[in-house]
Amino acid sequence: MVFHKESKSIKSGFKNMADILSQFDIEFNRIADAMTRHFQSHLPLVNDICGHILFAGGKRIRPLLTVLFGRLCGLDTQELYDLSVTPEYLHAASLLHDDVIDGGEFRRGKPAAYRIWGNKATILAGDFLYARAIHLASSFGRVTIAQAISETVARMAEGEILQLQRIGNTSFDEDAYLQIVEYKTASLIAASCKIGALLADAASTQVAAARNYGHFLGIAFQIIDDALDYTADPKEAGKGIGTDLSEGKLTLPLAAALQMANADDKTWLISTLAQKDLSTDSLLRIQKIIQESGALAYTMNKAHEFIQKAVEGLGIFEDSPIRQQLTRIANFVAERKR
Amino acid sequence: MVFHKESKSIKSGFKNMADILSQFDIEFNRIADAMTRHFQSHLPLVNDICGHILFAGGKRIRPLLTVLFGRLCGLDTQELYDLSVTPEYLHAASLLHDDVIDGGEFRRGKPAAYRIWGNKATILAGDFLYARAIHLASSFGRVTIAQAISETVARMAEGEILQLQRIGNTSFDEDAYLQIVEYKTASLIAASCKIGALLADAASTQVAAARNYGHFLGIAFQIIDDALDYTADPKEAGKGIGTDLSEGKLTLPLAAALQMANADDKTWLISTLAQKDLSTDSLLRIQKIIQESGALAYTMNKAHEFIQKAVEGLGIFEDSPIRQQLTRIANFVAERKR
Repeated sequence: MVFHKESKSIKSGFKNMADILSQFDIEFNRIADAMTRHFQSHLPLVNDICGHILFAGGKRIRPLLTVLFGRLCGLDTQELYDLSVTPEYLHAASLLHDDVIDGGEFRRGKPAAYRIWGNKATILAGDFLYARAIHLASSFGRVTIAQAISETVARMAEGEILQLQRIGNTSFDEDAYLQIVEYKTASLIAASCKIGALLADAASTQVAAARNYGHFLGIAFQIIDDALDYTADPKEAGKGIGTDLSEGKLTLPLAAALQMANADDKTWLISTLAQKDLSTDSLLRIQKIIQESGALAYTMNKAHEFIQKAVEGLGIFEDSPIRQQLTRIANFVAERKR
Repeated sequence: MVFHKESKSIKSGFKNMADILSQFDIEFNRIADAMTRHFQSHLPLVNDICGHILFAGGKRIRPLLTVLFGRLCGLDTQELYDLSVTPEYLHAASLLHDDVIDGGEFRRGKPAAYRIWGNKATILAGDFLYARAIHLASSFGRVTIAQAISETVARMAEGEILQLQRIGNTSFDEDAYLQIVEYKTASLIAASCKIGALLADAASTQVAAARNYGHFLGIAFQIIDDALDYTADPKEAGKGIGTDLSEGKLTLPLAAALQMANADDKTWLISTLAQKDLSTDSLLRIQKIIQESGALAYTMNKAHEFIQKAVEGLGIFEDSPIRQQLTRIANFVAERKR
């Protein structure tokens, strides 16, 4: 599979993402503590809904990035952990709203919140969690942090709306795709990194470098996520292939295939998409075309270009164990398989 | 009608709410300018949805309160007007979400946004508007303002959830009712007043007094809104009676009637509510019971108690034309008829 061939080009001493993340057990425990402490509402129902999504085994890579960039810029306090939960709350809030909007049935292996508590309470719990996150972000005495976080929430909503507007649109526009990715995914990962540097009162060049690392890593992360949607083994339990397609979302692998496939496959693809034929046979053929046309390789190369940019930008920081960890995290994002 | 008898107890030289608000034409023009300048998104669709609700003829009493409290505390700059749009954005965002949640068909005489653009885009436009408001609130160099605003968004969501949890519950608990009112309505009006004082760098006693004025005014405002839901002339075009009831919301007038009605009426009310019989005949009899049992008078008295508290709290400020205007606004909230 092209995906594997590509990812081998990135060298590291770790076998997989779980390996590298297991290095950070102490950090993840402190992050989990802070997450529990800060999200309490007066209302049990709000706690139930928010707890359902917050403690369902997400990777918590965003808080980890906040902590690592704070430390890279010379800060290592409890405040850093408190702040780090902000992006995780925003992420969870967006997932609550997304699942209502997209009708996703499962989230992190559990039924989506709206299937248990209904659309109304789930939308409102999302509103609460957004507000709680921004309130927390504004409790560190720096308006720059509150601004970075609220700007990100606006961007995330714009990204989802952009995506919504393009549903069912089969014309390929890589720039439009990248704008959606930047808004809906990269903006939050960029903010996660930036606020760590801001809390450390880092120089503006360092704040910008932190933001850029997250920005490029976030774009790569989403591109690979979209690629994985077409590389899953359809026989495997859990996530099938073509989930994005079934939601009408045209992502880079399919968009590239529409450009790169041979004439026969292209004609078939266009007519299949027009007919919205999403039978298993069709999905398997789409998967095959994406791999054999070179569209998957093109997609993964794109992701790797962004990973490269993320890593290069770390060059303004002095070499240190934390900088090396951030380099490894970037390289492993490129290799993740789910 | 008891409502009128009660409201006459409050003296003033103006005939109605429109009269007193027309005094502030200059302020409202500057508020409208600021509203236009600050809400722009990169996305036309977001602008369309937000513009639909922002420029549909709301009274903009919240921004006016921000401006008046800023001035009462000695500040009168363009910044004050810029800040004043924040609570109006939050209010509009909450209306966008509320209409999706409650299925309200019309808003300010126009079709509700979700009926034009769908639930998904409307939820996301609401998210955008919340975020835009908080971002704006964090652009004045004072974290206290950003905190007040984000705390309010959390409270508003909690208030809506509380209300949602009580839908269909016919047991009367005035404290629970007042908590919902405080969270979903008063918290934002309190914040509108408080941020004006905060921007003026007012003393903490003045900030607290501004907040308390808005808090009590907001509670009174919502109680009267709930009373108006049962006092409208059913023959009049526009808003009918019993809208809250049809949404399953038990508000103070009906709750009080369930306590105060005679035995026959009480039995009839309980069985009618249980059967969810909302025919015009039933609604007219409910209206009659609310008026004749004294429940409406009780409700209006409650509102007037809160108006009184709002006005009394202004006593810590020196007498001035602005303080007198705030007193008149409070008294007119008590008299509003729609």
